[in-house]
Amino acid sequence: MRAYTDMTQEEIRSELDKVQGEYEAICAKELTLDMARGKPSAAQLDLSTPMLSILQGANDCFSKNGTDCRNYGVLDGIDEAKRMMACLLDCPSEDVIVFGNASLTVMHDTIVRAMDFGCLGSKPWSEYERIKWICPVPGYDRHFAILEQFGIEMIPVALGDDGPDMDEVESIAAGDDAVKGIWCVPKYSNPSGIIYSDETVRRLATMKCAARDFRIFWDNAYCVHSLSEEAAKLDRVLDIALACEEAGSPNRFFKFASTSKITFPGAGVSGFSASAENLAETKRLIGAQMIGADKLNQLRHARFLPDMDAIGAHMAKHAEILRPKFTLVQEKLDEGLSGLEIAKWTNPRGGYFVSFDGLEGTAKRTIQLAREAGVTLTGAGATWPYGTDPHDSNIRIAPTMPTLSDLEAALEVFVCCVKMAALEKLTRQ
Amino acid sequence: MRAYTDMTQEEIRSELDKVQGEYEAICAKELTLDMARGKPSAAQLDLSTPMLSILQGANDCFSKNGTDCRNYGVLDGIDEAKRMMACLLDCPSEDVIVFGNASLTVMHDTIVRAMDFGCLGSKPWSEYERIKWICPVPGYDRHFAILEQFGIEMIPVALGDDGPDMDEVESIAAGDDAVKGIWCVPKYSNPSGIIYSDETVRRLATMKCAARDFRIFWDNAYCVHSLSEEAAKLDRVLDIALACEEAGSPNRFFKFASTSKITFPGAGVSGFSASAENLAETKRLIGAQMIGADKLNQLRHARFLPDMDAIGAHMAKHAEILRPKFTLVQEKLDEGLSGLEIAKWTNPRGGYFVSFDGLEGTAKRTIQLAREAGVTLTGAGATWPYGTDPHDSNIRIAPTMPTLSDLEAALEVFVCCVKMAALEKLTRQ
Repeated sequence: MRAYTDMTQEEIRSELDKVQGEYEAICAKELTLDMARGKPSAAQLDLSTPMLSILQGANDCFSKNGTDCRNYGVLDGIDEAKRMMACLLDCPSEDVIVFGNASLTVMHDTIVRAMDFGCLGSKPWSEYERIKWICPVPGYDRHFAILEQFGIEMIPVALGDDGPDMDEVESIAAGDDAVKGIWCVPKYSNPSGIIYSDETVRRLATMKCAARDFRIFWDNAYCVHSLSEEAAKLDRVLDIALACEEAGSPNRFFKFASTSKITFPGAGVSGFSASAENLAETKRLIGAQMIGADKLNQLRHARFLPDMDAIGAHMAKHAEILRPKFTLVQEKLDEGLSGLEIAKWTNPRGGYFVSFDGLEGTAKRTIQLAREAGVTLTGAGATWPYGTDPHDSNIRIAPTMPTLSDLEAALEVFVCCVKMAALEKLTRQ
Repeated sequence: MRAYTDMTQEEIRSELDKVQGEYEAICAKELTLDMARGKPSAAQLDLSTPMLSILQGANDCFSKNGTDCRNYGVLDGIDEAKRMMACLLDCPSEDVIVFGNASLTVMHDTIVRAMDFGCLGSKPWSEYERIKWICPVPGYDRHFAILEQFGIEMIPVALGDDGPDMDEVESIAAGDDAVKGIWCVPKYSNPSGIIYSDETVRRLATMKCAARDFRIFWDNAYCVHSLSEEAAKLDRVLDIALACEEAGSPNRFFKFASTSKITFPGAGVSGFSASAENLAETKRLIGAQMIGADKLNQLRHARFLPDMDAIGAHMAKHAEILRPKFTLVQEKLDEGLSGLEIAKWTNPRGGYFVSFDGLEGTAKRTIQLAREAGVTLTGAGATWPYGTDPHDSNIRIAPTMPTLSDLEAALEVFVCCVKMAALEKLTRQ
């Protein structure tokens, strides 16, 4: 295909006419398709449905050490659930606190605790005029929403192929003791799917921070979410706990993980890990907030996914369902957009998203066109702090939820809208 | 029996010798009994065990309106769970937010939100030098622990037979805009089991508050927890929402309830209700913290307890199990202590506790003696702010967890320790 960027204005206008015609034909179909959120499909949820009836009756409510999981107690979770979460958190099971159905809540509450009480004796973050946070972009909208709610200033830093631009991260962290943290999705990052290199992890652990209570929020949401057997074998992230320990900054990280995209997003189990000092402080503070998370659900999960082998086998089934969808995204984008010089996109080995970049200034228009044609995409700017992408170019594609045929239809609409927005933009120039 | 208070010093010493002998005989038995926490017994938990297998397979994960309860979404809860919680919260189901397994967490987080953001535009509570709270005593230790964590000054007010001393509550609330709230357990209060009168509820709703963001934290933990059919029929608390609405203070209350002592303490469902304005603000703020509480557990609960009739029938089964235990407490205390003039105790129609008052200055000693004889009681002072009972007289008796025979043994130990502590005290005088 000929690059739009090489076309004369006349050729562009003619191509736009053609694409507009295609777009009108699409609108006439009155589609209703959704590629907005990273939700598992019904087929994926069915993989875990045996878990629903895994506990049978009054004699089957006890953890291995005899705890009645129906009753009160056990602040940090039953042993077998801690062992399961330790597989995801890459830590010893005694370093795990098991929480409820959302790591989002754990991350939010961890920030709240630091705002109200500081970290390990530091000044409560709420007592600063304003605190700041390093936000690799493109990133996860719900991470940014927590910071926005607390008035925390977000500093975007470009996320490359092996992690955030570490020169910039180091400079920001060293320069201001009001800079208190960084969001990291180290494996199959949301949305670009990149994996942090060992060097990135080591630099995060060793860098000089002006704030002694600087914290790396290590959201390993996609730790076991590889799309192929090969990726499951090869893709590894250096453990941030190990790196911090070696660097002499053992308290610098908080780790988060959950089973949301392993079992049930609406009814999973989440977990938290940190250094011994951080864990002790966390347990002390959460003692006023909870008696213990849902232990019956912990028991269900631990019975269903007792160890890393079981988790791996289960995730391979997810990959079977997801791989054709991610392949289809690459095929349809290649087929529709390759050579036009108006877009690039990622081809991840795991995770839930494809990160797409159109021409500068076309993302909002693309999403608007798609919406009007019946295809819902993640809002423009969602991958940037404050919902504002300064380039107006990034779009997060979430191919997991629709069926293959719906996804194909949605991608055809998407490709048409990308072309139309690009041509409109090139026409105006 | 002859009142200890009428005895001569010689008689007291002689009686103490006798009771010490009994105590030594008890210690020799090397008992291990627990009357410390308000936990349901295994027999009570068995009542809800059918709920564990109530969802069967992939076709049984959908709410009535078709929501897949396994997936993400529905911030305020599925419709049928809202209807169930509305029975407990005494409100329309649209005024309910369904949360996770602990109303304690909801209460904690509600205070955190007010600390960080104020209420409906008021100044964040954390910006005050110090805020204050009205704490009816005896009260619930976990309520006090939340306030203590946030450095909120607790002002104890005596709880009478029909609610807190309202003259005092009114005077405190009117006098200082740093007084931001009051804990209320309006029905079968923890631990004294009293029920708020209509007049108490109306005075709470109508009283003048110096703080326009004063909030009544209405923890209706024992709303359906009557010990007899008669109590279930007759015991009613005037709805605080109605009273506030009528008094022109519709935003003054937050209501909390849970199924912890209806189904499973470790795996129940909690709920929150408030005015339309408070609800809107709460939903806006929790949107950064969660996507929605566990919907599969909501569905389980709503299937198991679809309406007030089902809840009532279920609670009657709890009452069958609990009534003999509460009767035994009265019998053993009457038999062992009546006429000695060294103690009084409540005889509640519902709830989980008996509130016991020994001679001033004997509660700690009684609990110590019991512990050394192998019987764990709730710590002395637990029913007071900061864990300090200025009279050192109140002890919370929690008879629900032990079997009847264990309870009988524990009560015999308790009676002996109460007598011994009283006699030691009277000897010293």
